[in-house]
Amino acid sequence: MKKSLLVLAIAGACLNAAHAQSSVTVYGDVDVGLVKKTDTTLAIGKRDSNALGFKGVEDLGGGLKALFQVEIRFEPDTGTLESVTRPLFQGQSRVGLQGDFGMLRLGRGVSALMESIQAFEPFHGLPTTTGFYTDVIVAGYTNQPLDAAGNSFNRMSNALFYNSPEFNGFQLNTTVATKEANSGIALIGRGTAALPQYPANAQASANPFSVSATYKSGPVAALAAYERNVVESKLWTLGASVIASGDIKLMADYSRQDRGHTLAANSKTKAWVIGVNYAIGAGKLLAGYGRKQPDGVVATREASIGYEHSLSKRSYIYVDASNKKAATAVRYYDVGIRHAF
Amino acid sequence: MKKSLLVLAIAGACLNAAHAQSSVTVYGDVDVGLVKKTDTTLAIGKRDSNALGFKGVEDLGGGLKALFQVEIRFEPDTGTLESVTRPLFQGQSRVGLQGDFGMLRLGRGVSALMESIQAFEPFHGLPTTTGFYTDVIVAGYTNQPLDAAGNSFNRMSNALFYNSPEFNGFQLNTTVATKEANSGIALIGRGTAALPQYPANAQASANPFSVSATYKSGPVAALAAYERNVVESKLWTLGASVIASGDIKLMADYSRQDRGHTLAANSKTKAWVIGVNYAIGAGKLLAGYGRKQPDGVVATREASIGYEHSLSKRSYIYVDASNKKAATAVRYYDVGIRHAF
Amino acid sequence: MKKSLLVLAIAGACLNAAHAQSSVTVYGDVDVGLVKKTDTTLAIGKRDSNALGFKGVEDLGGGLKALFQVEIRFEPDTGTLESVTRPLFQGQSRVGLQGDFGMLRLGRGVSALMESIQAFEPFHGLPTTTGFYTDVIVAGYTNQPLDAAGNSFNRMSNALFYNSPEFNGFQLNTTVATKEANSGIALIGRGTAALPQYPANAQASANPFSVSATYKSGPVAALAAYERNVVESKLWTLGASVIASGDIKLMADYSRQDRGHTLAANSKTKAWVIGVNYAIGAGKLLAGYGRKQPDGVVATREASIGYEHSLSKRSYIYVDASNKKAATAVRYYDVGIRHAF
Repeated sequence: MKKSLLVLAIAGACLNAAHAQSSVTVYGDVDVGLVKKTDTTLAIGKRDSNALGFKGVEDLGGGLKALFQVEIRFEPDTGTLESVTRPLFQGQSRVGLQGDFGMLRLGRGVSALMESIQAFEPFHGLPTTTGFYTDVIVAGYTNQPLDAAGNSFNRMSNALFYNSPEFNGFQLNTTVATKEANSGIALIGRGTAALPQYPANAQASANPFSVSATYKSGPVAALAAYERNVVESKLWTLGASVIASGDIKLMADYSRQDRGHTLAANSKTKAWVIGVNYAIGAGKLLAGYGRKQPDGVVATREASIGYEHSLSKRSYIYVDASNKKAATAVRYYDVGIRHAF
Repeated sequence: MKKSLLVLAIAGACLNAAHAQSSVTVYGDVDVGLVKKTDTTLAIGKRDSNALGFKGVEDLGGGLKALFQVEIRFEPDTGTLESVTRPLFQGQSRVGLQGDFGMLRLGRGVSALMESIQAFEPFHGLPTTTGFYTDVIVAGYTNQPLDAAGNSFNRMSNALFYNSPEFNGFQLNTTVATKEANSGIALIGRGTAALPQYPANAQASANPFSVSATYKSGPVAALAAYERNVVESKLWTLGASVIASGDIKLMADYSRQDRGHTLAANSKTKAWVIGVNYAIGAGKLLAGYGRKQPDGVVATREASIGYEHSLSKRSYIYVDASNKKAATAVRYYDVGIRHAF
Repeated sequence: MKKSLLVLAIAGACLNAAHAQSSVTVYGDVDVGLVKKTDTTLAIGKRDSNALGFKGVEDLGGGLKALFQVEIRFEPDTGTLESVTRPLFQGQSRVGLQGDFGMLRLGRGVSALMESIQAFEPFHGLPTTTGFYTDVIVAGYTNQPLDAAGNSFNRMSNALFYNSPEFNGFQLNTTVATKEANSGIALIGRGTAALPQYPANAQASANPFSVSATYKSGPVAALAAYERNVVESKLWTLGASVIASGDIKLMADYSRQDRGHTLAANSKTKAWVIGVNYAIGAGKLLAGYGRKQPDGVVATREASIGYEHSLSKRSYIYVDASNKKAATAVRYYDVGIRHAF
């Protein structure tokens, strides 16, 4: 009898604890390290993006779920947001429904292509100089060049995001945005400074969209994706990866970009990257080589090697080195810690 | 014996879980929808305000409680704060005590009149174009015209908020703010551009305050409220509602505004709205008609209809249409989802 | 049998509750009060800083822990961040490891000297005018004068923080920052407006650092600390405190500052403060007297008295009065509430 009461009391206490916090998960990561770049002073910097986010899932019954997620991005070395022109919830701000039909969300987030491509890059999409994602694979392509300067290159605002269910290893993800203006900068393009192709706070000339198709079968994965941005630049990519043995993953990606709508000459860029991940006990070795060739400009070649050592499932320390050659060569080294929460 | 130990172990685990999160509740809502307005491109927008907040209540014993609440407001379609000139905690930032005497809070929040009036508007105070709260009932009156441009129209900073206990259905809420300057813009008023009535970063010429008296008795509710802002504009309102049957609520509100302290002519505005809410199973129909008549300016007439369909207690989808006529007519449609967390 | 199942069900519910929130603690404080200063209108203000933070500790096994902490600072009277030029995570943003070796963190936070000195000031480091921390003890010294104007005076960005373990009552804390530029303002110094000693976005001319050594033995504590900032200003301090009886703590601090690297004349400042804390039941009386003497400028003398009355471990109300005399005298009074969460 007394035990039952105790059990009930505990149950009550637990329910209260759960209640007090309703359904929100606070999550994020902090990644800080020492960074040294050719001809630059030793700095405290980052290797991964840093996030503080809030998310939740509500079970609506019948397999249907409501979900939301908002995510702050920040620089832990100075405590600031990623940039004064980036939104508070730079990471994402979305609400939607998930069910047998897949997942449908509205708001701001990483586009379908930009999200899918990260699995085919040896530094798993890290924004650091040692990775190939930002500067090589997508070759400086930016989703919203009519937004404020410095805004994100791989996200869409005012968008609808649809992820299909996985079907025999296939999945289709799509992002479509409205044409609405976002108080951004002018883009001269094929116009002149006096009469820019897109004046300040211009609308998109076509609805931006992004589509990615992925396929997974045992150790093999493949990607084909295409997107068009607010000024009708186009980007497509093909990627593939294979788990050669239990601890080795090989991967490659090829991308092409066409900015012909805003550039009269030298509007195309090709890029490719090959890479390997090699798991060694609690450690993982990352290595890759990539090349970016914009028309009429000297090619960029990058070779990078990195090592991540897990302290736990949520924390690892890392060390990286990379060499990037274009007109000049830049060497880059970092060592630091990343903690997810 | 073993069971007791298990029970204790569970109790310990629960206490730890409760401890880790102390006493803060993370809450908010995300509302995103498709929005179409006459002569404007289809947009991703909102119907309700979007919030991410943190609040807590501490029991001090003897019926006394300490409470705090801070609330971020944001735009989920772009991930930004509501406006670059609005504070981070635009929603509110308050701390106070609650007890038999009522509730006393200090900080920034919605004024007594502006909070009470929302129950007498058919779109429950939504800031959307389809609602009557922002543009019709309070007729463009703003609490802090000496703050930064674009700042909130219905909040007071540097204020003391007192809510009385309910007594036989009566409740009195009051807000009083200091005169202190808040680094805001100049207001020409009865002065000139060279010599504005209130220069930049001016103090209030009188203490702003807001008082609302509400009465509830069975199906009937009534409101009388008055407030004066930092530049001595005055606003008063009378509202009433009745629950005609279990699923029908009828409501009406009448407001008058006097800006004679800063305007030499056409300083008065009258406004009224009538509305109905009709609950149909998991759905709720909202409809209303309102009219705003500023002196010397053509009147604004608005008719709106909306429907909210609950997916759960925390999530609903909505669709609305409204027609607003002044010098020209604007039609407005939206469809979207709102999720509270 | 049934009881066991119930117990397991409860255990499951608890684990879920714990899971949903993973490992993040949301914490902070809100302090709002009425403030009156000579020749200034009555205002709503603060006595302590206001914070909303997120922190967590992960046990890595073997006595090793990973930890992170990010902290927003805000003004509850207006809902804004502390200043438009301060970072979102003005309080701190750090990640690191803790173990037998002490605690090592990277990011932004209060420097070793600035943190240690607060225990030797009768208003426990409060930033209010009634306290001695900001304006007297550290005498206007600022850590990062090359950052944006209005940025923090007592924090280091781009820094490494090391706290030693306590050893026979001794502890050594150190902070070292990189020289990297932080997009800040120019500092004329020994240059001219046309050719400032440090132009805008300048690097530090030497690595800023801060060292504090503290000693505790029974009722006695002592401090010796030294730091040098980004423009080679130097600050050192000596402090001591003694618990005279169970409810009386006496304390004193002496500081010197040398800005000779950027000032040709009058580069030195001396300051001292003496104080007492007296616990009376749920109350605590704080009193102190301090003097700041910059070379070639009239001295500032301040006398302050305050009283804090605990409503609980997390909430107290306070009242203070102070008199600060330099060229003119300023009297300052406040009364308010502080609630920690």
